[in-house]
Amino acid sequence: MFDVEAIRADFPILSREVNGKPLVYLDNGASAQKPQVVIDAISRAYSEEYANVHRGLHFLSNLATDKYEAVRGTIAKFLNVSDAEQIVFNSGTTEGINTVAYGWAMPNLKAGDEIILSVMEHHANIVPWHFLRERQGVVIKWVDVDASGALDPQAVIDAMGPRTKLVAVTHMSNVLGTVVDVKTITQAAHERGIAVLVDGSQSAVHMPVNVDDIGCDFYAITGHKLYGPSGSGAIFMKRERMAEMRPFMGGGDMIREVTKDAVSYNDPPMMFEAGTPGIVQMIGLGVALEYMMDTGMAAISAHENDLRDYASARLHGLNWLSVQGNAANKGAIFSFTMDGAAHAHDISTILDKKGVAVRAGQHCTGPLMEFLDETATCRASFAMYNTRAEVDALVDALELAHDLFG
Amino acid sequence: MFDVEAIRADFPILSREVNGKPLVYLDNGASAQKPQVVIDAISRAYSEEYANVHRGLHFLSNLATDKYEAVRGTIAKFLNVSDAEQIVFNSGTTEGINTVAYGWAMPNLKAGDEIILSVMEHHANIVPWHFLRERQGVVIKWVDVDASGALDPQAVIDAMGPRTKLVAVTHMSNVLGTVVDVKTITQAAHERGIAVLVDGSQSAVHMPVNVDDIGCDFYAITGHKLYGPSGSGAIFMKRERMAEMRPFMGGGDMIREVTKDAVSYNDPPMMFEAGTPGIVQMIGLGVALEYMMDTGMAAISAHENDLRDYASARLHGLNWLSVQGNAANKGAIFSFTMDGAAHAHDISTILDKKGVAVRAGQHCTGPLMEFLDETATCRASFAMYNTRAEVDALVDALELAHDLFG
Repeated sequence: MFDVEAIRADFPILSREVNGKPLVYLDNGASAQKPQVVIDAISRAYSEEYANVHRGLHFLSNLATDKYEAVRGTIAKFLNVSDAEQIVFNSGTTEGINTVAYGWAMPNLKAGDEIILSVMEHHANIVPWHFLRERQGVVIKWVDVDASGALDPQAVIDAMGPRTKLVAVTHMSNVLGTVVDVKTITQAAHERGIAVLVDGSQSAVHMPVNVDDIGCDFYAITGHKLYGPSGSGAIFMKRERMAEMRPFMGGGDMIREVTKDAVSYNDPPMMFEAGTPGIVQMIGLGVALEYMMDTGMAAISAHENDLRDYASARLHGLNWLSVQGNAANKGAIFSFTMDGAAHAHDISTILDKKGVAVRAGQHCTGPLMEFLDETATCRASFAMYNTRAEVDALVDALELAHDLFG
Repeated sequence: MFDVEAIRADFPILSREVNGKPLVYLDNGASAQKPQVVIDAISRAYSEEYANVHRGLHFLSNLATDKYEAVRGTIAKFLNVSDAEQIVFNSGTTEGINTVAYGWAMPNLKAGDEIILSVMEHHANIVPWHFLRERQGVVIKWVDVDASGALDPQAVIDAMGPRTKLVAVTHMSNVLGTVVDVKTITQAAHERGIAVLVDGSQSAVHMPVNVDDIGCDFYAITGHKLYGPSGSGAIFMKRERMAEMRPFMGGGDMIREVTKDAVSYNDPPMMFEAGTPGIVQMIGLGVALEYMMDTGMAAISAHENDLRDYASARLHGLNWLSVQGNAANKGAIFSFTMDGAAHAHDISTILDKKGVAVRAGQHCTGPLMEFLDETATCRASFAMYNTRAEVDALVDALELAHDLFG
């Protein structure tokens, strides 16, 4: 039974005040807060069980290694990946997508080869491909969303051509909340021999994800949005694709043998995990994912869908507010602007005075802002611990901002 | 006044037992333990002060940003770098050196250009250069150490030729403890227009470091060895060198503007800091460095030099033990093998039974092992919290191992 008050009690920061008001934290799309079990796991790791991992032969090193490596299975379970050796640890989605760009695309794509992106991608899923455009003449093809903010899978399929090598697409927009039918896109791409990378930064937080079922080649997640530590993350990479890759970063742990004249590499996933990793962050991420699975991804999704419906009704009731993105299938992420002169930054400042934390700006989505013809928007993004009362607090604060600026 | 018992009391893990014996942690070269102030700072950040950094306009985001960005000045102070904008945050030395390899060397070095390495480099300072050798024909020139494990600066200078573009050298060997005269090397390199990268992973832990005085172009440190969180680190990069670089990883925060057809980059250091960073890890690293500076780097160095001298005398008193590395200028890091049949792994296992944690293996230094004609060694590496009594415990355990295997 999903009990939001019990969940709230697990997150210590939610009981604090901001500017003399109870914190209403609606900036979850940027980063989520952490439950006490995660904070405790970090403290325990450093206080009682810390050492560097791998190749240590002493007790603490073996203990830390066991705890750290167990997280691979936790992530595989969380993403429904049958073969946990396809999970590569990293510091988050940015590093994950750069690993694919440098490790797979750079050696395999030639001038004129195409990468398809949706217009609502996050910069983390744009800039690495711009590097390939600048450096080796790869062509980026963009697919727009429709007026509701939905991405028609057929529009992506229509963009696929004989030179297309990769479709890189978000599973859930960080601005519009739009959920993308990545399974249909993947099936069509694979029929044409095209690889698919899915940016799961937002989706994995809000709904059950089944990577084996989607069938994509790469699926990136980021731990700090998943109620886990900053600097944690992972990417699923299919065995067949890993076999086509060269390593990304060089250093310890990812090698088999190093001599003066030669280097040979460890097997995946370690081939892609150079240097001392984020040991305690990954242990903390494992605890965060266990917390989510114990709560139940279906229950989290149902609760957030209720928040989405409630927030949608209330925000659409404000006739001076424009909400960007109303796709039929969307998560509890709302981007909005106020009709008239008020800038998104001014609105967010007023909201902050009332304790309501939202983000204002481009949300790392330059092309989407251009498509929407906005320079900046406010974004309220919900998480499992948010409530209908917090939706009301958001609306109250917006009404105050409207009174001041409208 | 340096009080080792007071310092020990600050590190909670040091009071635990391992295999029924008090922990004697001598694996500091792999990773150091954390003082309570660091653990508390992490807990406080997540419990009270957490949000994503930069571009947030709400209270928690501003608070987290202020705490996070303040660490740049702390690191600059710690390394004696006058201009803190030359400090780039990252996850550790491996990412730091890869940033230089991908961002500076890859676009600037051509086939036949040379990189000089010492034979005692860590794989983190070898493998990224092997990538350039494999991918674009860069030549690696190796400089051996002498029989004592010392690196003669003149030998490095003699290796510099008209095609040499970079000297990449450790400041302190992670196996031999050898301290390298990186200032003399840098001066000679700069007279010839050659850039210098210094791997400060070990040195910054054990002695005062003055990067402005050394004058090198790049100086990499890693937080988890500096009593800070795993997944934290930084690299000093000179402004002039940053101006010659292209970005390494692409994503949020490192850009100025992203459109469908173009991308422009933020100014350094942010140009090199893609995506959501290790927010809380960097805050924790700042606290760790403050702890070190409060203790006093000169005092830490003096204490460790005493441990070095005491350990050196005791280990050299064991006529069945071979110690690798006896340079005149070395830190409290001891690599050793036992004459006869005992393998390093077996020795470390016996030591572990007595609570003494050392590392056994290649220590990520394949070329050095080849140079020493060893397949593996044991390594005892000391930190500020170690004591003479722990040296005695190491020697007692070694004597037991010798009785069993000798």
